[in-house]
Amino acid sequence: VLVKRPHGIPQPGDFEVRNASIERPFTAPLVVRNKFLSVDPAQRGYVNDENSYLPPVPLGGVMRAMAIGEVIHSVDPRYAEGDHLFGWFGWQDYCVTDSASVLRKLNPAHGPLTLNLGVLGINGMTAYLALYGIGAPRAGETIVISAAAGALGSVVGQLARQAGCHVVGIAGDDDKCRVATTRYGYHAAVNYKSAVPLPEQLKAACPRGIDMYFDNTGGWILDEVLLLMNRHGRVIGCGTVAIPSWLPQPQGPRQEREILMRRLRMQGFVIFDHQHLFDETAARLAGLIEQGVLLYDEDIEDGLESAPAALAGLYQGNNRGKKIIRLAPGISTS
Amino acid sequence: VLVKRPHGIPQPGDFEVRNASIERPFTAPLVVRNKFLSVDPAQRGYVNDENSYLPPVPLGGVMRAMAIGEVIHSVDPRYAEGDHLFGWFGWQDYCVTDSASVLRKLNPAHGPLTLNLGVLGINGMTAYLALYGIGAPRAGETIVISAAAGALGSVVGQLARQAGCHVVGIAGDDDKCRVATTRYGYHAAVNYKSAVPLPEQLKAACPRGIDMYFDNTGGWILDEVLLLMNRHGRVIGCGTVAIPSWLPQPQGPRQEREILMRRLRMQGFVIFDHQHLFDETAARLAGLIEQGVLLYDEDIEDGLESAPAALAGLYQGNNRGKKIIRLAPGISTS
Repeated sequence: VLVKRPHGIPQPGDFEVRNASIERPFTAPLVVRNKFLSVDPAQRGYVNDENSYLPPVPLGGVMRAMAIGEVIHSVDPRYAEGDHLFGWFGWQDYCVTDSASVLRKLNPAHGPLTLNLGVLGINGMTAYLALYGIGAPRAGETIVISAAAGALGSVVGQLARQAGCHVVGIAGDDDKCRVATTRYGYHAAVNYKSAVPLPEQLKAACPRGIDMYFDNTGGWILDEVLLLMNRHGRVIGCGTVAIPSWLPQPQGPRQEREILMRRLRMQGFVIFDHQHLFDETAARLAGLIEQGVLLYDEDIEDGLESAPAALAGLYQGNNRGKKIIRLAPGISTS
Repeated sequence: VLVKRPHGIPQPGDFEVRNASIERPFTAPLVVRNKFLSVDPAQRGYVNDENSYLPPVPLGGVMRAMAIGEVIHSVDPRYAEGDHLFGWFGWQDYCVTDSASVLRKLNPAHGPLTLNLGVLGINGMTAYLALYGIGAPRAGETIVISAAAGALGSVVGQLARQAGCHVVGIAGDDDKCRVATTRYGYHAAVNYKSAVPLPEQLKAACPRGIDMYFDNTGGWILDEVLLLMNRHGRVIGCGTVAIPSWLPQPQGPRQEREILMRRLRMQGFVIFDHQHLFDETAARLAGLIEQGVLLYDEDIEDGLESAPAALAGLYQGNNRGKKIIRLAPGISTS
């Protein structure tokens, strides 16, 4: 439950675990037992008093989160007891809700349940739909991806490599850079915290300039990448984790002249606009996993009470792969 | 001739008129006698030491400018003596050059020669190709256009009105606002220098929010418009006259979060990427003029020596319509 309105990055003290009971027989149209909770950078926007694409979680309200849960009661003929659903079920053990919270019913043939939070969830689907929908990659083009080894970046990197691009990652430590190149197919990866300035590293890694930038960070990293973009380049805006707080409005170099002179196209992408494509996209990605050409990593922690610190840790780059909270330790992932 | 490298807006003292003679017989492949010179906000970028889409005019070099000239010598079979050409002929009486300077050969059926600098020149063609190519206007959408009554904005406004949009202009004085609504078909126009804050005026003029912004100014006007954009809005970046200088790099509020949250698409447009469409586009626009559904205004001054002050005046909003320099006073416009 959110108990304090955070400024900037939400911290563990902004949340409390509270007990409540659900009366039986169930009167709500849908009740699910959560098994896995998602931890996502976008959750910051759900709790801050900043303009977001959703109204902020009220103080005293259950933290908004995507989760995977099993149906234990349903009046909707599409969802039967025992089905697993992906939806807006919150950071809680049980969700008493209705069908409007459901994002999709999971296909057990697609592998372990947890995949549906990351590589087959909003991360994989964002990678797929934003890269192809906005980026329209062409073989031989150079793409730079920030948060390169994260749950989203790792999928973008692999898909871009398969599209024939020269793929360069940006990450915040050498280990993530190594994972990007050895595991996720990046041609090169640069550490923005290194002693060598980022522009210098990027110039060396992108000898033909940059045609696409898949931006998960915003901020000064975006500023530096823009100055290396080729004409008619595309910037896919998917996240702003490099900005610690949007209140007050942070300042930066004006970009309108670079956008004009370089004829750039900069476009924001929010996966929830594309819900009609979720099933189809998850099936495509599941096919790539089955063929062994799409790798993923998960970083699973146990217990509802660990969720707030896991969220704060995302902004420090602590996670390795998709951050997931497992409820009731010992639940099988299959 | 450019004699001083300006910082920010070029001023008359940055230029000098110099006399030189051309030897006959002509040895260059093409010689034109200029009749009308163009004065364009983009010329600032040609002389500053800023990153631009063209290398800067060297000190001691003739000022780069588009012009309309009559062929007086040509070895290229496409251009005969007496033809009128639109091209990079510079702020000078005669241009000794070759075919690479030619942007297009003019069609005498399209009306007065001067039209080919403005409404049938880069202003009209930018309006047409950027509005349709990037904006993709749909009937019922709201478009805001800055520098609304200028050579470019006035065409955008009329085309957007014909596309069924709700058309709102921004200009810097009440007279321009009046011209926008009474002559160029804007539904409303707001004066950004008025005592009423711009956001308040725009909210009143755009009750359904803003779907497209045709941005000729950049700067704080862009910042304010972005905050009123609807989801999936488009921002067409065509000019940055609101920024007095790009050295040092001006700062402003970071826009990446607005672009992401509102799913905006912001794209820069430079007309010279579209030269293959010039003849076709000019013919379409000439058709609209002939039908009486596309109005234009010209602000013609006499004499080569008046060009530098006319350029500086553009940034103060002094012009009324397309600013043109007529060489040899008394030259007929037809």
